[in-house]
Amino acid sequence: MAMEHTAKAFDEDLQELARLVAEMGGLVERQIVDSVDSLIRRDINLSARVVATDVELDKLQHMIEERGVLTIARRQPMAVDLREIVGALRVATDLERMGDLSKNIAKRVAALDSDFHPLKLIRGLEHMTDLVQSQVKAVLDAYAAHDVPAAMVVWKGDEEVDAICTSLFRELLTYMMEDPRNIGFCIHLMFCAKNIERIGDHATNIAETVFYMIEGQPIGASRPKGDMTSFSSTSSVG
Amino acid sequence: MAMEHTAKAFDEDLQELARLVAEMGGLVERQIVDSVDSLIRRDINLSARVVATDVELDKLQHMIEERGVLTIARRQPMAVDLREIVGALRVATDLERMGDLSKNIAKRVAALDSDFHPLKLIRGLEHMTDLVQSQVKAVLDAYAAHDVPAAMVVWKGDEEVDAICTSLFRELLTYMMEDPRNIGFCIHLMFCAKNIERIGDHATNIAETVFYMIEGQPIGASRPKGDMTSFSSTSSVG
Repeated sequence: MAMEHTAKAFDEDLQELARLVAEMGGLVERQIVDSVDSLIRRDINLSARVVATDVELDKLQHMIEERGVLTIARRQPMAVDLREIVGALRVATDLERMGDLSKNIAKRVAALDSDFHPLKLIRGLEHMTDLVQSQVKAVLDAYAAHDVPAAMVVWKGDEEVDAICTSLFRELLTYMMEDPRNIGFCIHLMFCAKNIERIGDHATNIAETVFYMIEGQPIGASRPKGDMTSFSSTSSVG
Repeated sequence: MAMEHTAKAFDEDLQELARLVAEMGGLVERQIVDSVDSLIRRDINLSARVVATDVELDKLQHMIEERGVLTIARRQPMAVDLREIVGALRVATDLERMGDLSKNIAKRVAALDSDFHPLKLIRGLEHMTDLVQSQVKAVLDAYAAHDVPAAMVVWKGDEEVDAICTSLFRELLTYMMEDPRNIGFCIHLMFCAKNIERIGDHATNIAETVFYMIEGQPIGASRPKGDMTSFSSTSSVG
């Protein structure tokens, strides 16, 4: 009877943790979209809202950490149950970082005072953001459903995001070389693209956490890398 | 007698955690210096070593997480003891991120094939790195000594790092506007400077963790911000 009571209380703790992670995940998905939207539409109000909302994400992460740790201390779970809680803590850490990166994008909106905004570049950034957002959604669904194959699809899909980022960097460089007046704007877009790419990296981190939670060991094979932005794209014209 | 035994075992667990965090901290300090050194001296071998060493940091972080969580489950510590373990987990997460950022700097070395490297820019980057490295060292010492005032000195000192970064960005922009052939090199240096600035941000995170560990509550006042790189420096000339 006492054991049953403990098991029930533990299940409730786990459900509450999962609920908080889902809440945080939903908020982060919106932050990603809103930050890039605010940049593209130069919407200062929306960008200010993204920056303000980031505080909530930090609070949620600390709440998840606190609840998770207290659950471990009270219920002394072992093996698979313990991994479940550690998984929630890790996912919350990645979500908090994603929120930070979105905030960094939104903070650039106020600086974008140039009239220069070629549609092709904007479309590239939007395409990249759509892809990353769908990666984030898919990996959070995989986390909630404990679905390792679905998580592995996200893990492998990061290659495409990196490839788009590299090609966007090349285009931005061309614009900068053509006319020095484009440099300021293009640098902002480069930092934004890099931030979105890194949000994608955190989605793959979450995919790895799903693997670890279910399989009980860290993922073995190394992640495919298509990102060459730090290796070649800028130097080739530098 | 049994309680004494438990207390002694718990103390040993804590000491082991502190030892692992110190080992990780020492490694990260070296990674920061080596990554910027490899960039300035264009030393491909050194940069490859930084990239390879990052794997060790990831392993150490997971080891700290695992030990910390097992200690919580086994010893069921409360209040201050629990915060001590949560603090170790948080510091390890920040150190792992600092390692990642150093790796990102080192990965750019292979791409720097231009002959252009003005001494003034290099000195600026070195100065910023020296400052951040001393911040990292100081905050790890404060963490080891449970010294809140020392941690607060680091917390406030981040303003200077951000100011140097902003001024370095301005100079880089000038070089880019002057001659498009400098653009590739300058962009690499911008991303490196941004990475170093963000390593500094993680040092202030650790300062906040020290405060939380000792005081039992999150730090209240907001951190002074001198970083305007995402607000104005590029747009003003863009």
